[in-house]
Amino acid sequence: MKDDNFIELCRVKPGTTVRLEDFDPGWNGNREIPKADRKRQAHELLADGVQSLAKAQELLYADNSWSLLVIFQALDSAGKDSAIKHVMSGVNPQGCQVFSFKHPSAEELDHNFLWRCMKALPERGRIGIFNRSYYEEVLIVKVHPELVHAQRIPGADPDSDGFWETRYEDINAFEHHLSRNGTVIVKFFLHLSKEEQRQRFLKRLTDPEKHWKFSPRDIEERSFWDDYIRTYEQMLTATSTPWAPWYVVPADHKWATRAIVASVLSETIESLKLRYPELTPEEQQHIDDARRQLENQAPKR
Amino acid sequence: MKDDNFIELCRVKPGTTVRLEDFDPGWNGNREIPKADRKRQAHELLADGVQSLAKAQELLYADNSWSLLVIFQALDSAGKDSAIKHVMSGVNPQGCQVFSFKHPSAEELDHNFLWRCMKALPERGRIGIFNRSYYEEVLIVKVHPELVHAQRIPGADPDSDGFWETRYEDINAFEHHLSRNGTVIVKFFLHLSKEEQRQRFLKRLTDPEKHWKFSPRDIEERSFWDDYIRTYEQMLTATSTPWAPWYVVPADHKWATRAIVASVLSETIESLKLRYPELTPEEQQHIDDARRQLENQAPKR
Repeated sequence: MKDDNFIELCRVKPGTTVRLEDFDPGWNGNREIPKADRKRQAHELLADGVQSLAKAQELLYADNSWSLLVIFQALDSAGKDSAIKHVMSGVNPQGCQVFSFKHPSAEELDHNFLWRCMKALPERGRIGIFNRSYYEEVLIVKVHPELVHAQRIPGADPDSDGFWETRYEDINAFEHHLSRNGTVIVKFFLHLSKEEQRQRFLKRLTDPEKHWKFSPRDIEERSFWDDYIRTYEQMLTATSTPWAPWYVVPADHKWATRAIVASVLSETIESLKLRYPELTPEEQQHIDDARRQLENQAPKR
Repeated sequence: MKDDNFIELCRVKPGTTVRLEDFDPGWNGNREIPKADRKRQAHELLADGVQSLAKAQELLYADNSWSLLVIFQALDSAGKDSAIKHVMSGVNPQGCQVFSFKHPSAEELDHNFLWRCMKALPERGRIGIFNRSYYEEVLIVKVHPELVHAQRIPGADPDSDGFWETRYEDINAFEHHLSRNGTVIVKFFLHLSKEEQRQRFLKRLTDPEKHWKFSPRDIEERSFWDDYIRTYEQMLTATSTPWAPWYVVPADHKWATRAIVASVLSETIESLKLRYPELTPEEQQHIDDARRQLENQAPKR
């Protein structure tokens, strides 16, 4: 299951034109191996990944110079929430924060569209997870351009030449700035098939414990499926950069999704080659002195 | 004194290489007119400017789609604070906010250098004034590159090729994003002569009421005068853009500084050609109905 080559295939090479039909949402490992074995391997891989991610995050925290920004985008029911839950479950919450970006508030609409996300960026030493993000500005807003009007941007015309290109450009420049200043950025698009979405929606409608997850808007948005796919393709093509790559992660099998996300994240942090801070001889001296002092305070018997 | 041509001369044309010796810090109006007359004219101009700025800001507030970001940068004692005080004095504080950026806090250093300024941006309908700004990142930090280390940016090397260029690039992209999303940006460099700074420092040291303004660091920084001038020139050259121009404002005469700043600001807002929101026939109907209703509630005599 652990297959660096496959992970490499998920990565959108900057400058290539993305066609989502080239990515199989139903991928679930090497089909020459029996499915039960693959599933077990994937669970092991997830467990390994979670563990090494927890370790990597401690190093990130101790090193205190890098931060990691992880962005999740997907169509509804693709499993963003459950991927975050399962992959990040081993990580110390003190070093990790999740922000879900919903419909923007009045205060948020009163600012440029990067504003609310800038405020929520992770500090040095931390992992920040964006469950949705400023990419909604070139996804749902692009599929429903009437949303641009709610933003009250003077002179903004979503039908004009270059309107969306300038948004891509602003996003790329923003991420470039972040990456130059110590934020590592990893972006996941969880890629679901239309049939698997239908199945998951049906489950929400059948299983009373899942009713709360359903909204009539889900079905409405589903009718824009083809528009969304095209819009995702354009976004992936325009904004996968050397400093902030997109990964297209197959999402029809949740266990496969989670294993891949965990692998990418732990490998990303490992690639920073962090180490626990080394002490100067002077600092070492302070440590030795302090230890001696405490030892000398041992109660007399 | 009101001299559109001179204001045009203060504007740094994008793409030109700035030499500050081409700008006269001692400018104080047309020298063919007696100085007393010029000074009186400047005061009238400031009064006019303050008034039209107050009016313009009300329109900005009613229109509620644009915001105005005004950045002040200068060497010490050039009169930033007093320009802000005198020019903005007529403006309703509900529509205007001033942020002074001092030495960054630990929380601020834990983020990218645009973070703290992004958080403080004015909302639609408002004027935001930055007394110092992210430009300190390519001014004091460039003159004292050891400050980069305090920022704990992994791999950052202020001596490496392109380090400062990427900062200029990030700033330009940031401002481009803001301007595309409804923020008008005006930037003032208050241009003081070295001799006038000496005089003002001496006054601080002589007048007991001004002692509190003095810090030994002022004299220390003054010894970097030539470095600062060169650094300002590089910054003005690299970051005066069509969407966020710099104005080099003569600062040896405070009354001249204030008159120019007020003129530029009110002209900038006027150029947006804002109008009070027009009512739709339906909204007009609501107004009429409500008026009638209140009129009918008049107490019977």
